[in-house]
Amino acid sequence: MKLWGGRFEGGSSEVFEQFSGSLHFDKALVFADIEGSQAFARALAKQGILNAQECDELVRAFAEIAHEAKDPAYFDGANDEDVHTFVIRKLGEKTSLAAKIHTGRSRNEQVSLDTRLYLRTCARTLLRQTADLMSGLLELGRKYPDAVIPGYTHMRRAQAVLWRHYLLAYFEMFARDFERMEQALARINVMPLGSGALAGSGFPFDRDEIAADLRFPAVTRNSMDVSGDRDFALDFLYACSMIVLHLSRLAEDWILYSSEEFNWMTLGDGVTSGSSLMPQKKNPDSLELIRGKSGRVFGDLTALFVTMKGLPMTYNRDMQEDKEPLFDAFRQTSGALSMALAVVDSVVLDAAKPAAAAEESWVIATDLAEELARRGVPFHRAHQIVGRVVLESVKAGKKPSDWTAEELMNCAPEFVPEMHRFLNPAEGMKSRELPGGTGPRAVAQAFAEAEARLAAMRSRLV
Amino acid sequence: MKLWGGRFEGGSSEVFEQFSGSLHFDKALVFADIEGSQAFARALAKQGILNAQECDELVRAFAEIAHEAKDPAYFDGANDEDVHTFVIRKLGEKTSLAAKIHTGRSRNEQVSLDTRLYLRTCARTLLRQTADLMSGLLELGRKYPDAVIPGYTHMRRAQAVLWRHYLLAYFEMFARDFERMEQALARINVMPLGSGALAGSGFPFDRDEIAADLRFPAVTRNSMDVSGDRDFALDFLYACSMIVLHLSRLAEDWILYSSEEFNWMTLGDGVTSGSSLMPQKKNPDSLELIRGKSGRVFGDLTALFVTMKGLPMTYNRDMQEDKEPLFDAFRQTSGALSMALAVVDSVVLDAAKPAAAAEESWVIATDLAEELARRGVPFHRAHQIVGRVVLESVKAGKKPSDWTAEELMNCAPEFVPEMHRFLNPAEGMKSRELPGGTGPRAVAQAFAEAEARLAAMRSRLV
Amino acid sequence: MKLWGGRFEGGSSEVFEQFSGSLHFDKALVFADIEGSQAFARALAKQGILNAQECDELVRAFAEIAHEAKDPAYFDGANDEDVHTFVIRKLGEKTSLAAKIHTGRSRNEQVSLDTRLYLRTCARTLLRQTADLMSGLLELGRKYPDAVIPGYTHMRRAQAVLWRHYLLAYFEMFARDFERMEQALARINVMPLGSGALAGSGFPFDRDEIAADLRFPAVTRNSMDVSGDRDFALDFLYACSMIVLHLSRLAEDWILYSSEEFNWMTLGDGVTSGSSLMPQKKNPDSLELIRGKSGRVFGDLTALFVTMKGLPMTYNRDMQEDKEPLFDAFRQTSGALSMALAVVDSVVLDAAKPAAAAEESWVIATDLAEELARRGVPFHRAHQIVGRVVLESVKAGKKPSDWTAEELMNCAPEFVPEMHRFLNPAEGMKSRELPGGTGPRAVAQAFAEAEARLAAMRSRLV
Amino acid sequence: MKLWGGRFEGGSSEVFEQFSGSLHFDKALVFADIEGSQAFARALAKQGILNAQECDELVRAFAEIAHEAKDPAYFDGANDEDVHTFVIRKLGEKTSLAAKIHTGRSRNEQVSLDTRLYLRTCARTLLRQTADLMSGLLELGRKYPDAVIPGYTHMRRAQAVLWRHYLLAYFEMFARDFERMEQALARINVMPLGSGALAGSGFPFDRDEIAADLRFPAVTRNSMDVSGDRDFALDFLYACSMIVLHLSRLAEDWILYSSEEFNWMTLGDGVTSGSSLMPQKKNPDSLELIRGKSGRVFGDLTALFVTMKGLPMTYNRDMQEDKEPLFDAFRQTSGALSMALAVVDSVVLDAAKPAAAAEESWVIATDLAEELARRGVPFHRAHQIVGRVVLESVKAGKKPSDWTAEELMNCAPEFVPEMHRFLNPAEGMKSRELPGGTGPRAVAQAFAEAEARLAAMRSRLV
Repeated sequence: MKLWGGRFEGGSSEVFEQFSGSLHFDKALVFADIEGSQAFARALAKQGILNAQECDELVRAFAEIAHEAKDPAYFDGANDEDVHTFVIRKLGEKTSLAAKIHTGRSRNEQVSLDTRLYLRTCARTLLRQTADLMSGLLELGRKYPDAVIPGYTHMRRAQAVLWRHYLLAYFEMFARDFERMEQALARINVMPLGSGALAGSGFPFDRDEIAADLRFPAVTRNSMDVSGDRDFALDFLYACSMIVLHLSRLAEDWILYSSEEFNWMTLGDGVTSGSSLMPQKKNPDSLELIRGKSGRVFGDLTALFVTMKGLPMTYNRDMQEDKEPLFDAFRQTSGALSMALAVVDSVVLDAAKPAAAAEESWVIATDLAEELARRGVPFHRAHQIVGRVVLESVKAGKKPSDWTAEELMNCAPEFVPEMHRFLNPAEGMKSRELPGGTGPRAVAQAFAEAEARLAAMRSRLV
Repeated sequence: MKLWGGRFEGGSSEVFEQFSGSLHFDKALVFADIEGSQAFARALAKQGILNAQECDELVRAFAEIAHEAKDPAYFDGANDEDVHTFVIRKLGEKTSLAAKIHTGRSRNEQVSLDTRLYLRTCARTLLRQTADLMSGLLELGRKYPDAVIPGYTHMRRAQAVLWRHYLLAYFEMFARDFERMEQALARINVMPLGSGALAGSGFPFDRDEIAADLRFPAVTRNSMDVSGDRDFALDFLYACSMIVLHLSRLAEDWILYSSEEFNWMTLGDGVTSGSSLMPQKKNPDSLELIRGKSGRVFGDLTALFVTMKGLPMTYNRDMQEDKEPLFDAFRQTSGALSMALAVVDSVVLDAAKPAAAAEESWVIATDLAEELARRGVPFHRAHQIVGRVVLESVKAGKKPSDWTAEELMNCAPEFVPEMHRFLNPAEGMKSRELPGGTGPRAVAQAFAEAEARLAAMRSRLV
Repeated sequence: MKLWGGRFEGGSSEVFEQFSGSLHFDKALVFADIEGSQAFARALAKQGILNAQECDELVRAFAEIAHEAKDPAYFDGANDEDVHTFVIRKLGEKTSLAAKIHTGRSRNEQVSLDTRLYLRTCARTLLRQTADLMSGLLELGRKYPDAVIPGYTHMRRAQAVLWRHYLLAYFEMFARDFERMEQALARINVMPLGSGALAGSGFPFDRDEIAADLRFPAVTRNSMDVSGDRDFALDFLYACSMIVLHLSRLAEDWILYSSEEFNWMTLGDGVTSGSSLMPQKKNPDSLELIRGKSGRVFGDLTALFVTMKGLPMTYNRDMQEDKEPLFDAFRQTSGALSMALAVVDSVVLDAAKPAAAAEESWVIATDLAEELARRGVPFHRAHQIVGRVVLESVKAGKKPSDWTAEELMNCAPEFVPEMHRFLNPAEGMKSRELPGGTGPRAVAQAFAEAEARLAAMRSRLV
Repeated sequence: MKLWGGRFEGGSSEVFEQFSGSLHFDKALVFADIEGSQAFARALAKQGILNAQECDELVRAFAEIAHEAKDPAYFDGANDEDVHTFVIRKLGEKTSLAAKIHTGRSRNEQVSLDTRLYLRTCARTLLRQTADLMSGLLELGRKYPDAVIPGYTHMRRAQAVLWRHYLLAYFEMFARDFERMEQALARINVMPLGSGALAGSGFPFDRDEIAADLRFPAVTRNSMDVSGDRDFALDFLYACSMIVLHLSRLAEDWILYSSEEFNWMTLGDGVTSGSSLMPQKKNPDSLELIRGKSGRVFGDLTALFVTMKGLPMTYNRDMQEDKEPLFDAFRQTSGALSMALAVVDSVVLDAAKPAAAAEESWVIATDLAEELARRGVPFHRAHQIVGRVVLESVKAGKKPSDWTAEELMNCAPEFVPEMHRFLNPAEGMKSRELPGGTGPRAVAQAFAEAEARLAAMRSRLV
């Protein structure tokens, strides 16, 4: 079925119908389409295009379709042009009033509305999942309140940090993701009906009323803009991209931390896989797939950017190509968030291992140098002194704990006996109590603040 | 069902099964998987792992599965990890020999094999479609052998060219695409079995024999490379990207040429759409969608590049994310080629329109200037003279045909009466007879060569 | 010069110094680096690491460097590792206190600070330029308050709209860009000092005080996050990408509108180019380059996404690769905005041309159909009726103005004489007075609101 | 200076000159431009446009410019539109014949020629560097002919492989890169002159002769195609992208292998960096930067794809945006290859470490299972048996070498005493002697073949 044709003589070619038809994917919008159409029917009633009884009949018919559409087989064999046409055809099978529902409405604005309704649900789902992941990270922190790990830069042990401090770094990333998605949602959550195909509807709808009916806080401001706009879709894709970017980094970390070489943590059997050939394997597939999903979502963002580039105003059919990337990005991002949460929940940290890794390596070098600086040695000189201690240790195979205070003082006159305690990583951490630092008090404070901030975020969720 | 587990105590979590399961998309590989497994059974027989009768039984059982799998409903309700596991489970339902088929074979190499078998079919399909499109362009050229259009640079009328010359420019693009896809195919078409998970199989298969069985012209050279390699998939995606890039340009041209403003050509009703709101619309949706597909395919290429970036050797589960972009890129590229061909077949050129567009504008300016240069005027000066003629014409609203020879000569003494004929676009075209130029003889020659080259390309298709 | 080395025996290889050195591009950060270092010197004084006189001496020495660095030749021949090292070396040439300035500060946080300082200036520049472009669009609207153009969908004439309405659509896009850039700026504008290399500084700096000194409204919350974070850079790149996306669409429109085929508008000679070969050419190079820049900026965004993907916590040297894409994206986006404004200022609309284009085509078809609907004809039927009128017109070569009321009524009984006036595009526009529509009153209202909103945006600029 | 203007009244605006001017980057093409122009002068002489003496004078004048252009300061202060205009202006300062050199040549074809000349040099450089890196990898293999490492899948120890086998896997990747770049070069290395702006030159140049003069093996076939073609540039960018993709994987591997956790290899001091804050750090910056460069080059590829998408035929000024991505991609890829070679040369493998890693882990599990299969146990059962041995070992903290033959046989009756030797990784490797496997003889064979193949590749280099 098609919603046009009076001006045409030949029918569509089969290859065109197959190539251009979108029902096989935009059927995902069916509930959004119906919700929007019901509101539109009420708006038509306000305009006097429908009387109250007709409006009721239409709204009820739509509700029936929504009910029937819960069965995935509902769409089997349908070869309508798109979901909007499909719904109208189904409507026509239920009521002769179907012919009136397209009065003063174009598919351009309808697609915009449906996509916005759909994406606002997606955005809210992702917000909730992001918050859940943040909760999971905090919970994982609570399990090991005092665990110490070597923090890395350049994938080399750098300085000792609290496990909770490490987790809070990811908390910050996801907190920014939450904010970014909220901002995307605000641009999604704007009501476009009344825009017509591009020039505005020929009927004086009360657009604010329609917005209220559909729980939109605002209406769009320019009909041509609406017709050609997919900014809100790009905003959504970008917000998803940032989430999977952060997940890819967490995945990389934990693939390593759970490897034979690091051996800090165990992933639950439930989130790992074996090999069909190699009997010993226990692979972190969940984390690898999370990491790999970044490609998919960045690809979706690229796809829509390319498709929109250089399009003249206003609507061009190219824009139909936004749907599959959007649906895919949501599915991948949502799946990755769920998977990440399950992994977080399954992690068992063997806290002795990273603690030993910290103690055996020279993560305390900076502590020593900074203590020298606190005692008046210019930092540049302090850095050199400690650098030489490390070089000597590397050559001799000595760990920090192998050094006596005397040996240190022999090495450089600036050392004093009290500094020997800085060979223990815990000591240096205590000096990092400024806000944002890994000092135990600072971390406890940051942790408490994170809990409060997360509660505030959750309270903003619908 | 899973192909591993002896080393595990807990089962997989539901979220993991859902997140990592690939059957819902890699079922597309089912026939490739079976074809490869049959060849592998024969290889096992050669090794004495199976006797001749067992081999026959397995090959037959696989054939049955292939037959059953033609019914899309075959996969309904299955929740195996992937298509390989699915096939093995089905096999197990048919014969107890299933337990032997994974001897000396890993899923890593099997995935590589299946994907290569699948992509070589895709590549061949796209080669054929590209050739068909080139045929279509030539046919469209034959319909209007003498038609003249204004060629554009910067979307401004530049010089008159033959319609056939214009079409041959696209022929060249698609000819390069054909070559590129052939080169991708050569890297796809290499047999990986025998590589094991990464170290090579523990059984001394005759790999060349397996390759011959599966009609591969070559075998891979390093087992670790095979395990971690998706270069052939990227090559395929890149070759697809170039095709859709060229299609996006053709689409842009013809959207404009068929617009009310250009009005040169009519697209068949069968490849255009109307509007649900605006009764007069006849929109070039087919071309818009073709143009928009470029985003999808570039996005797929980006996706796989990102996914593969920075992966350690060898196989990592991230690589499972290659499938959906590959399948999507094939579907979009193939669809766009089919659609483009249908459009090409439907085009009716109203040759008088572009001819008039050429005559009314100053596309002959270069002809005039070059003729001056041929008569000894330094080109820089010739350019200036003609530039002033054009400026004067623009101000006075004069077309080339409005100028008399005297007026030209009044304008600059370098003009001579014989040059007046260059005010007709056809005259200048005659001077462009060097190979690659738009001169009628040169184009006829190029056209004949294109036909011969295309025949040669087709002869290389399997 | 290097800021490390005690632990090393061999020096850097030449190929490494050349490959890793960043001075040739990060010298762009020199003023940011100095501004941050001066604030840091004051913070060291608060800590007692420097006395007041030492602090003054350092701040003064930094100021001298800033003064000298205004000369681009200042960096000639320098082969320091990066701009931070360069500045420290210069400082050392001026004062022996240089050895103290790195106390309690790492390059990781310094890079973060410098980049944030730099980008907040860039973001503010782009905000100002975006506002200027919006002003330019409004001004261009004021020049032709009543001009009517055919609005397009699918690059086909769709409905008549006011020129001002069309311009306001772009205003909306750039208003969203403004908001997006403000939100990016809010995430850029956070003070990272005190984070150390990753664990927090070993000195108890008052971070809020440093933030106030450098006019940052907030401080970062986690030191590991700071070390590994480039989210703010991605936010900036995304905000730039959206700007150039919108510019690419404006460019496409106007390349067409100023073409021989549309011929609606003239671009100033100052923003167009000629051809070295074709004397008649006047090409819209400015717009083409604006359109082309979209590739560059999307490429920059892609680049940083790829670089950051899968990086383990925290800082990895890969992150140095953020600078050139950032600098490039700013330069391209800023240049494109300037160019676009100059084009907007130069445009002369030949209002009669688009008006004629509207009148000669069937952009009034929807007006007719909607009027039928307002008079009680079900829209589906109304659409068919008008579709047939159009089809007949196309065959007979009739324009709307060629139809009499009688002919319309002969065509379908639903037509009534009063409807004849809807054959004039101005009539239909009057029925589109709902907010966001192209009705003259609605547009006047939207225009006034746009002016007020723009004033409010400008008032938020620093 | 400009090469056009007769048709213009107003001059270019300053913002346009700044925005559109390309001299600051396309000056990189100056030598290519001169080489091409000299050949073109000779072609003009053949046409009789220049006499022999004039031709000599022009060729000499060009040679002078080439000589002067070796001084980078040569371009200081120049504000010509582009490098072509710059060269013509310089030419005009030397000879009055300059006015003739643009006869029958357009900048569109000139840009194509210059870019092709430039890129073919770049491609050849990268081919040589790729070959050098392959040599380096082979040399690194020769240093440790018998070293054994645990091969990884999923970043988990999988099976033992020879170090040389591992290196050969990278050899294969770079061999494909070599082939891909050769294929790109073949499409770059085609001579476009004679194409004019788009329609073919108005002078009957002998294009094959020009090609021979400039050592091009072929000429382009269609003038419009030439004008709008950047396929060869995309082919180059794609070939670069694949190289940096492979380098990113090598970098990832070696960042890990040289980490404290793996501790297999030492990178030379010359290719590592320290920290300005942390005295103990020795960071693999060279490898991190190599990994990070992948983003830059993928970004360049994306940029040009986006810029070209949807451009109408033929030349559009957008295409000027190809230069900076091309130059950047070459610079980054070439730099990364040089850096990688230096790293390869600096690596010291501590072969005992990976050997121990192999021996202590269950990389022999597959060997055991396959031996069971060779002895008639269905593989599925063999996999389960060994899986249980591993599980028991993990629980009891047993290494393979801790197991006695009796213990194995107690565990499953299928074990026999002779199988005990498979607990040593070297044993299993011996069973992988099929082509492409890690068996010592197979690897020796593959290594010898690699040497021969590399020699053949080198022989193809100009």
